[in-house]
Amino acid sequence: MKNYVILNVVNEGRVELHDQLGLTGAEISINTLPAGVGVPFVHYHKTNEEIYYVFDGKGYVVIDKEKLEIAAGSWLRIAPEARRQFFASNDASISYVCIQVKGNSLEGYTMTDAVVE
Amino acid sequence: MKNYVILNVVNEGRVELHDQLGLTGAEISINTLPAGVGVPFVHYHKTNEEIYYVFDGKGYVVIDKEKLEIAAGSWLRIAPEARRQFFASNDASISYVCIQVKGNSLEGYTMTDAVVE
Repeated sequence: MKNYVILNVVNEGRVELHDQLGLTGAEISINTLPAGVGVPFVHYHKTNEEIYYVFDGKGYVVIDKEKLEIAAGSWLRIAPEARRQFFASNDASISYVCIQVKGNSLEGYTMTDAVVE
Repeated sequence: MKNYVILNVVNEGRVELHDQLGLTGAEISINTLPAGVGVPFVHYHKTNEEIYYVFDGKGYVVIDKEKLEIAAGSWLRIAPEARRQFFASNDASISYVCIQVKGNSLEGYTMTDAVVE
């Protein structure tokens, strides 16, 4: 198997990259909610930390009943146990990347994990 | 401590989000290389899988001596042991997100890790 996988992704509502990229330490999805639309349920995670990056549009997220405005450029880390629900604003869609990783799984990074040749 | 951290990030060459977001399962950096510039060294990782997302511009990456063209929209998974080096093209800068996660650390995701309320 090659040491890399490369993709060019066209956004189509929801794209899941785990299998396409052969990921072993994360799941990544690309999501778009049309204006006025929200994810139709509240969810939390058993073990996974979620990191959200809004790359287009605007909307809001409700975390443990607190409402937070988000827009292109927003980065958000949500602990596994937090109850969350994402919504587009009424007058604009929102597009975001969601990265799922196992909480407390990272042991080292950059200076302690990378080797320069 | 709150169950979330939210940031609005201004790109300034290299921004590291691990400490700012309080990440426990990933390190994420946002990087820009000006036109004609490359990362000045080749590197690999001891244990971390890297996932790259090019969100602006174009350039190329050399992985184990193979040259791959990349541009806005490219997603790339690189195994820990692969030797890698990123470059902007000669006529355009390149901006990308780099996500580091421990290889083989993800146990479940989405349907097996999320709980809907």
